[in-house]
Amino acid sequence: MIDFHYWPTPNGWKVAIMLEETGLPYTLRPVDIGAGDQFRPDFMAISPNARMPAIVDHDPPGGPLPVFESGAILIHLAEKAGRFMPHSAAGRKQCLEWLFWQAANLGPMAGQLSHFVNYAESVQAGDHSYALNRYRGEYHRCLGVLERRLQGRDWLLDDYSIADMMSWPWVLIAKPLGQSLDEFPNVARWRAAVKARPAVQRGVDLGKDLRRTGPHSEAARNVLFGQTARSLRG
Amino acid sequence: MIDFHYWPTPNGWKVAIMLEETGLPYTLRPVDIGAGDQFRPDFMAISPNARMPAIVDHDPPGGPLPVFESGAILIHLAEKAGRFMPHSAAGRKQCLEWLFWQAANLGPMAGQLSHFVNYAESVQAGDHSYALNRYRGEYHRCLGVLERRLQGRDWLLDDYSIADMMSWPWVLIAKPLGQSLDEFPNVARWRAAVKARPAVQRGVDLGKDLRRTGPHSEAARNVLFGQTARSLRG
Repeated sequence: MIDFHYWPTPNGWKVAIMLEETGLPYTLRPVDIGAGDQFRPDFMAISPNARMPAIVDHDPPGGPLPVFESGAILIHLAEKAGRFMPHSAAGRKQCLEWLFWQAANLGPMAGQLSHFVNYAESVQAGDHSYALNRYRGEYHRCLGVLERRLQGRDWLLDDYSIADMMSWPWVLIAKPLGQSLDEFPNVARWRAAVKARPAVQRGVDLGKDLRRTGPHSEAARNVLFGQTARSLRG
Repeated sequence: MIDFHYWPTPNGWKVAIMLEETGLPYTLRPVDIGAGDQFRPDFMAISPNARMPAIVDHDPPGGPLPVFESGAILIHLAEKAGRFMPHSAAGRKQCLEWLFWQAANLGPMAGQLSHFVNYAESVQAGDHSYALNRYRGEYHRCLGVLERRLQGRDWLLDDYSIADMMSWPWVLIAKPLGQSLDEFPNVARWRAAVKARPAVQRGVDLGKDLRRTGPHSEAARNVLFGQTARSLRG
């Protein structure tokens, strides 16, 4: 059994999709990030970065194994299930390249764009046009990298894999980020193909009812956007 | 023999340090990122993200193997050398966690802080205080994560490893980013211990003479900071 510490956001969806794709049994453990659940000592013992998703795998013979960082979790689950990660050395290398690429490029740049599109402007007087322009450009660049990679191939690797699951949630939200996929036809095709998988639908629907419907409260905003090292002291 | 596509920046240093630590023979292939070398088709065939560092390993029996993304490169080199990555399943899991943590947290947040400290203010009228404050907080938070991890331990894992090499270059530059390590004594101790290694010194000195001494030219600024998907079209 796996404890899945989760909140419905793109990074959470990566792991939700993988759990649904593999059919590995799991128990949902909601982490209300607006309420600050991520700073609870019991959660930080699992995820020292105080971010979800995280899992605790209770099956290994050595005792419960906590895993944080979505890339590391996807690899753990792929090795556990024996699926969705290539077995050849060359295939594995490519899988690692694209997992790290998402973690270091598409994820942080889309995340910052989302911050300046969705949150910064509403709370701060002043002009975010420089930052908005920067992250629009960076997100656009990342979509361009995907577009070239997907030219003439169905998936990021030879077969559908955790590399697709890692990047896809951050492309799913292109429209609310203000970015059309019209100029990225391969990305649009791939986005639709991943979306058509029933397990992916179940993954992004997980905990849908937990999502807030209105704007963040002032308190939630402070928890989410005012973090420093002091936030980690509980 | 390894071709090492490199420019002296924190992400480049990660791999330079590892090459020096292992003693694996390599040929330096400078990628002048201010001149736009990263968009040359021959380089993009190696690194589809048009970023350095990247390597081509000419030793595998299957033919030359290109690797991009610093995390994937460090894992490739650790497996090739049989050093600096734990061999146990639990140790390997921890190594992946901290590699992905750097790629997704410390690296992008320090990188954005650096952008707003070093570049944005000099080119743009207007007030970046919101963005500066955001990335100062995020960088501070990341140092707090490291501080807790390094409490009572010498290295990020049980032994000195690629996890240390991945994070260290982004802590080396704390002072120019405006962040003192006084409140992070474990991080300061670890930073000094890594810095004392001769191979690390050789790594960060690699290509020192290539670094610019004055501010970026207008042309270099456009190449570095005005990227979109169109930049990838050469």
